[in-house]
Amino acid sequence: MSKPLVSPLSALDLARRVEAGAITPAGVVDLCVEAIAAKEAEIGAFAAVDPERTRARAEAAVAALTASPLRGLPVGVKDIFDTADMPTGYGSPIYAGHRPATDAALVSMVRRTGGLVLGKTVTTQFAFMDAGDTRNPHDPDHTPGGSSSGSAAAVAAGMLPVAIGTQTGGSVVRPGAYCGVAAYKPSYRMLPMVGCKCFSWSLDTAGLFAAGIADVAFAAAALAGRDLRVDRAAPSAPRIGLARTHIWPEASPAMQAAVERAARLAEAAGATVRDVTLPPVFEDAFRAHAAIQDHEAVRALAFEYDQHRDRLGPQLRAHLTASADIPPEAYDDARRIAKRARHALADLMTEVDVLLTPSAPGAAPRGLGSTGQSIFNRLWTLMGTPCINVPGMFDESGLPLGVQVVGRFGRDRAALEAALFVERALASPAGA
Amino acid sequence: MSKPLVSPLSALDLARRVEAGAITPAGVVDLCVEAIAAKEAEIGAFAAVDPERTRARAEAAVAALTASPLRGLPVGVKDIFDTADMPTGYGSPIYAGHRPATDAALVSMVRRTGGLVLGKTVTTQFAFMDAGDTRNPHDPDHTPGGSSSGSAAAVAAGMLPVAIGTQTGGSVVRPGAYCGVAAYKPSYRMLPMVGCKCFSWSLDTAGLFAAGIADVAFAAAALAGRDLRVDRAAPSAPRIGLARTHIWPEASPAMQAAVERAARLAEAAGATVRDVTLPPVFEDAFRAHAAIQDHEAVRALAFEYDQHRDRLGPQLRAHLTASADIPPEAYDDARRIAKRARHALADLMTEVDVLLTPSAPGAAPRGLGSTGQSIFNRLWTLMGTPCINVPGMFDESGLPLGVQVVGRFGRDRAALEAALFVERALASPAGA
Repeated sequence: MSKPLVSPLSALDLARRVEAGAITPAGVVDLCVEAIAAKEAEIGAFAAVDPERTRARAEAAVAALTASPLRGLPVGVKDIFDTADMPTGYGSPIYAGHRPATDAALVSMVRRTGGLVLGKTVTTQFAFMDAGDTRNPHDPDHTPGGSSSGSAAAVAAGMLPVAIGTQTGGSVVRPGAYCGVAAYKPSYRMLPMVGCKCFSWSLDTAGLFAAGIADVAFAAAALAGRDLRVDRAAPSAPRIGLARTHIWPEASPAMQAAVERAARLAEAAGATVRDVTLPPVFEDAFRAHAAIQDHEAVRALAFEYDQHRDRLGPQLRAHLTASADIPPEAYDDARRIAKRARHALADLMTEVDVLLTPSAPGAAPRGLGSTGQSIFNRLWTLMGTPCINVPGMFDESGLPLGVQVVGRFGRDRAALEAALFVERALASPAGA
Repeated sequence: MSKPLVSPLSALDLARRVEAGAITPAGVVDLCVEAIAAKEAEIGAFAAVDPERTRARAEAAVAALTASPLRGLPVGVKDIFDTADMPTGYGSPIYAGHRPATDAALVSMVRRTGGLVLGKTVTTQFAFMDAGDTRNPHDPDHTPGGSSSGSAAAVAAGMLPVAIGTQTGGSVVRPGAYCGVAAYKPSYRMLPMVGCKCFSWSLDTAGLFAAGIADVAFAAAALAGRDLRVDRAAPSAPRIGLARTHIWPEASPAMQAAVERAARLAEAAGATVRDVTLPPVFEDAFRAHAAIQDHEAVRALAFEYDQHRDRLGPQLRAHLTASADIPPEAYDDARRIAKRARHALADLMTEVDVLLTPSAPGAAPRGLGSTGQSIFNRLWTLMGTPCINVPGMFDESGLPLGVQVVGRFGRDRAALEAALFVERALASPAGA
């Protein structure tokens, strides 16, 4: 199966070429704009693109951009983040053409660190389940995943080297897996959420997409101003806990095989791998995610529900209606369960550096009506731990299968390094 | 000293009269509008008032409002929360006349529970230290405190029975103390912050002002849908820890005397009072507040700092400049210290139900240039615990002196009940 739509651009490679003077920031913008011209009609990753102004900015500040942390790279921003100079629709007809007064904090961080916001990427409605029109570059008849649909698809198609998304259930790791790119959900609150349309304030977490693990770590290091790069030395061999979790039977045979293969290849490359059984509190926490998310969503989207109910997507409208009566006590209980599970996870992870587990139930489902299931992600979102989709495997039809590396809270660099180790093991002669 | 400007309206009393048919919601609006007509020119509590539409709403839905949790009471909303039908300026000329697309979640909660948003109340610029023009109803030459200046002053002057504020350092409890009204900062995240202009996402906490403790508990119960009312039975006698803290010498002699008097009267009324010495981690946590707040503010207000620096208030501008280089490691350290202190506080408070401590260094300082100091509040904001200003005492010049009741995280009802107990003890024959 040929995949002319799939050709991700390495952010790190482009940054090095900019740094070396082999290409200008405007030249990189041109690469992206050409890819967009060639592929966007089929993929539909963008809610808005601003090539002229982005190119003008790239040309107006060559020296400053070349010396900046992000080296003038174009960045796509999920259309759930406010931008003062581009429309911000949150994926909803209620906000069609909306122009916020302010940039979201993370958008300001992109600009401060020398990134160029080339476009807004398609989100499902308010980052819930009502899908947009984005298609999977690996097969346009399949969903790219959601809710960060456009960010994942744009990076996979090489229309952007870096894109920003958000995850409340599994909206970064899952589309990364479906589209076969690196996707990184940092520790809760490492990237600022101010100016991002809220669904659940305890869970919404900004994340990043890029071609590979070293690329996504490069972008995260720049945006967060933290020591997160993993491209300067070979990654040390991690202690991996293979966590099948209680929902393992929900993973497809191909996904189960992919996770076990990743574990085997990592072990062959020098990692320690052991099976990890999560204690029962994690089953409670898995269920607690819904009470927390939904109790908060009923409040976060109260204005839209009360004033524009008919214009909400049918899945979101039904979900908010069904969630209206979650009592505060159930919410409080869920938060206490989450806290207990976080303590249990910290204890568990004294023995291993990272967990290895599926990024999604399988490859991207056929059809665009559903963006797939977040069942393999939501527990980790609730735990607030770094989660990374490692690309590099495929099912028999050629669709990507991603495996997930889950790190310890606040140990993002170690998680990224472990993810790089797994990524390299998959690409090794043994894995290839 | 006569105080014609001070005449708070009891929310609970008004709600009961509405319920009994003795006054209509429109009649309550009229009371407030008359007080505003008489006093607002001198006090300057409002950024915007909407009497006509509020009255029309009160008349259009008499039965629904009368049966609602908030009984149609007028509510003031600090002008740091978005309102789709009123200008929202965040206290800043950058946003003069700004009309958000969306109501903040807490504003939607006001509307859902039958409150009428009568006006937006003055905030300092972005809820930091650059003051607005609001005056203290007890003496117009003195600050009302900040940053929730207008909310506290409007309630003290009887222009509103309920007002909403926010606290990042001490911006609810302190203005409540300076203006001699009940002020309640709930447990972190009990009231939603979506649509509130962010200064520090780890600290910003919505709170409420009302005439007395039972009033503020009534409003909180309605807005949060929680069992927080304390007016249905006599409060049980609390176990009180008198917490002078390491900054006790910063409290004025009058404030020290007020706290000790409150402890003595509560004990005389049946409470258990013991001295509590906070372990050293709380001194670290006290200092950690700044690193957390400022690292986050640099990001939360990045757009305004980068695009409109000249139009920021001088104190905020200087503060953001000075805070620009707080390294992520200092921020991470501060968060770890806060976490340790929260655990230590939970341990400490197995022995007592609440702590009693100053609400502010003393009475409201003279002048309008400064809104006073948050040194007696910021530790508790960082701890996320419920904090309540108990009014009822005055210094020799007749200015209010407030004492603060600090409860256990998530035990807001017990904290409100203890505050009511102290409030009653102050008003008892022994205290009067």
